[in-house]
Amino acid sequence: MPRYILKLAYNGAAYHGWQIQKNAHSVQAELNEKISLLAGERINLTGCGRTDAGVHARAFYAHFDVLQETAMRINTTDFVHRLNGFLPKDIVVFYNKPVPDDFHARFNAASRTYRYYITRRKDPFLQGLSYWFPRILNVDIMQQAANILLDYKDFTSFSKVHSQTKTNNCFLSFAQWEAKENLLIFTVTADRFLRNMVRAIVGTLLEVGRGRLSYNALNEIIEAKDRSKASYSVPAHGLFLENIAYPFDI
Amino acid sequence: MPRYILKLAYNGAAYHGWQIQKNAHSVQAELNEKISLLAGERINLTGCGRTDAGVHARAFYAHFDVLQETAMRINTTDFVHRLNGFLPKDIVVFYNKPVPDDFHARFNAASRTYRYYITRRKDPFLQGLSYWFPRILNVDIMQQAANILLDYKDFTSFSKVHSQTKTNNCFLSFAQWEAKENLLIFTVTADRFLRNMVRAIVGTLLEVGRGRLSYNALNEIIEAKDRSKASYSVPAHGLFLENIAYPFDI
Repeated sequence: MPRYILKLAYNGAAYHGWQIQKNAHSVQAELNEKISLLAGERINLTGCGRTDAGVHARAFYAHFDVLQETAMRINTTDFVHRLNGFLPKDIVVFYNKPVPDDFHARFNAASRTYRYYITRRKDPFLQGLSYWFPRILNVDIMQQAANILLDYKDFTSFSKVHSQTKTNNCFLSFAQWEAKENLLIFTVTADRFLRNMVRAIVGTLLEVGRGRLSYNALNEIIEAKDRSKASYSVPAHGLFLENIAYPFDI
Repeated sequence: MPRYILKLAYNGAAYHGWQIQKNAHSVQAELNEKISLLAGERINLTGCGRTDAGVHARAFYAHFDVLQETAMRINTTDFVHRLNGFLPKDIVVFYNKPVPDDFHARFNAASRTYRYYITRRKDPFLQGLSYWFPRILNVDIMQQAANILLDYKDFTSFSKVHSQTKTNNCFLSFAQWEAKENLLIFTVTADRFLRNMVRAIVGTLLEVGRGRLSYNALNEIIEAKDRSKASYSVPAHGLFLENIAYPFDI
């Protein structure tokens, strides 16, 4: 069956995350429904990952298979245009491209990049897209603490307690704070992330920035492999899945 | 009585405009309530103008008077900080400054600048802050039509039919379209604006951009002094009161 990859973005405010689930609205359910309508057959998307309730995605990839006769119809330039018209305002599809049959949006993803946006002053126009945190922060020390993350693999201390993953190892390749006008942005890249991991890391680094934790407390927290050692999780509405890197052009 | 000027911004989505009114929530009512609480006396703000339901303001000024003994208390650096903590997330106060007793936020305003934001491609993160209008537009011709606006004074054709104003004369000093990545922004400055005027102008200029009206149809429309000659009004959520100019520093 012909396979396609969809590149999209969404504002997660109205959704219980990407993944389809009972009794809660998801981005995947919304897309499955609208693509199925347009394609004239039942389509099931496979996403590049999951995002938690309320988390946004500036770039998200999902693949799907269609019957040969459907492929004839959907491989047209106006499919994406019509799909965007069908979808609600908080989801946009950038493109839809044919990919090899063995392409997998999740398993082929080499790395994921998340960004967390903090607003220093209150901003009525970044409501729902950033976390308003007006306290004084030492960003240099927060960066030193972030550097420590790159020395470790097992991030159990920043993982949701009852996650059912085989291993809690993640390979972090980038962790940086950037101050930009009224914003403070944390960018982190890894091959994979555990549930709630970015938000727990940001919450902990904010405690360092406020002077409530020393930057090298990060070593102890990570080595404890115990979620209760790390700090609170910052709210979902400041978090964006920013990019997914594949080892080839898609 | 000591008089103060407040500079603020708001996301208008949740409000029926600035002006206080029965059975509808307004920015003025929200501010009156919270400032009264903090000041410990009944405060009534006088705004620099009105904005319609759903319209945003990136800069808005309002003055208010307080009793002498209240002035002792509110003229402190943390008043604005505490006020922002009291106010909902969609309203921010930038500062609060003493002004002369005869200062008037509305009558002293020399000019007002509005901006209208159009999103060319769908953008889930500018939802509610711009008007998604994906059709092909000739921006050069829209600018030629905008230039014609500067030749006229009476804007009855772009005014809400039952407005109770003595005159429909406005002195426009600036009207410009600007394309910026995915945005198309219309900026217009005048000493005053009639109700609904900017949105009716933008709606008409979009018709010119689509080729449904020639740019010099603007002359006929304005000269007719008849609202039915102009085109539809674009939605409120793309409109921002951007700036108010006073003839002295405030």
